[in-house]
Amino acid sequence: MKLHGYFRSSASYRVRIALNLKGLRVDHLPHHLRKGEQCAPAYLAINPQGLVPTLENDAGAILTQSLAIIEWLDETHPEPPLLPNDPLRRAKVRAFAQALACDTHPVQNLKVLARLRELGLGEDKVTAWAGWANREGLSACEALIAKEPGPFCFGEAPTMADLCLVPQLANARRFGVDVTAYPRLLKAETAAKNLKAFADAAPERQADAE
Amino acid sequence: MKLHGYFRSSASYRVRIALNLKGLRVDHLPHHLRKGEQCAPAYLAINPQGLVPTLENDAGAILTQSLAIIEWLDETHPEPPLLPNDPLRRAKVRAFAQALACDTHPVQNLKVLARLRELGLGEDKVTAWAGWANREGLSACEALIAKEPGPFCFGEAPTMADLCLVPQLANARRFGVDVTAYPRLLKAETAAKNLKAFADAAPERQADAE
Repeated sequence: MKLHGYFRSSASYRVRIALNLKGLRVDHLPHHLRKGEQCAPAYLAINPQGLVPTLENDAGAILTQSLAIIEWLDETHPEPPLLPNDPLRRAKVRAFAQALACDTHPVQNLKVLARLRELGLGEDKVTAWAGWANREGLSACEALIAKEPGPFCFGEAPTMADLCLVPQLANARRFGVDVTAYPRLLKAETAAKNLKAFADAAPERQADAE
Repeated sequence: MKLHGYFRSSASYRVRIALNLKGLRVDHLPHHLRKGEQCAPAYLAINPQGLVPTLENDAGAILTQSLAIIEWLDETHPEPPLLPNDPLRRAKVRAFAQALACDTHPVQNLKVLARLRELGLGEDKVTAWAGWANREGLSACEALIAKEPGPFCFGEAPTMADLCLVPQLANARRFGVDVTAYPRLLKAETAAKNLKAFADAAPERQADAE
């Protein structure tokens, strides 16, 4: 399989963790987002959103959107599971993941921040915007798992929730957010980062890291 | 079951369609978003993001995030299915849904537009922002299903993709987007709107509509 991604893209980071947890090796095809390589016609032909990641499976089929890719990996390579068996628990994990993947990350991604700059906002306001989006999402997530003993977001093994949390915390720190406000999230992050699958997926460990 | 929602919220609209397709009746609990009712402490206690919808099931369990709720409904009430059986087809439907639910709607929701106004942007620029977000998402979705014969987004019956598309097109029109640029999406919308489940879920048909 081939994964089109970018070392610092948090959506790519989620999928890298999933692939590592499943023990799947893929060819990594980096697209430099800050140089606009994701808008090259050849890439738009496989991902019309011009976003990373995109996964090409062994049969050449194209999969886009990180959560859809992760669910596909979980359905086709069930061990270890990234979602609980119980439907209600699955809904909780998915809701946590979507609070970050729908309502947080897309509001602070490169494309949106570039648009804010085009509207004339200075760098301080752009960074404040990204910080705001991260705080909104992380505060909600802290509440969503307040009663979960952990150590991961939902129980004693990582789920799709942790796959979204770890990259989002990295973004939050990059935008200067004080993440000590989220002790339960940090507990889950510590548990995750102790696993080789998470450590190997970190942006600074990728071949295209700068 | 009880659905906390708002007539014009497109995420609530998605869940209303799902409930109707499954033939499930729920009590509707409206929260007036423009009056800030979603930020009342009692509501934040069940939905810490302060977003709609929230579903309370018959056992009193709380479910948040529209796509997570729809997946839960599909797992617990399998007929008619809202996702295909084949994992790759499921991934395609989810990716389409997420292109709207992750990358489009959250970038133009009430909260983000309010933030833009706080930053001093005039109403014309705020509307232009919302139009931009919709065009970006809808253009990509048009490409994602260009080779799908339809009439629905993916085949001859509605899926989670159509549940996201119909509310998003309603938003796009509200922000002045020329949706005739998306003929394949309009074909799917027409097929959907001919179904009572979609028609009954429309914002203007809700008890809290203004």
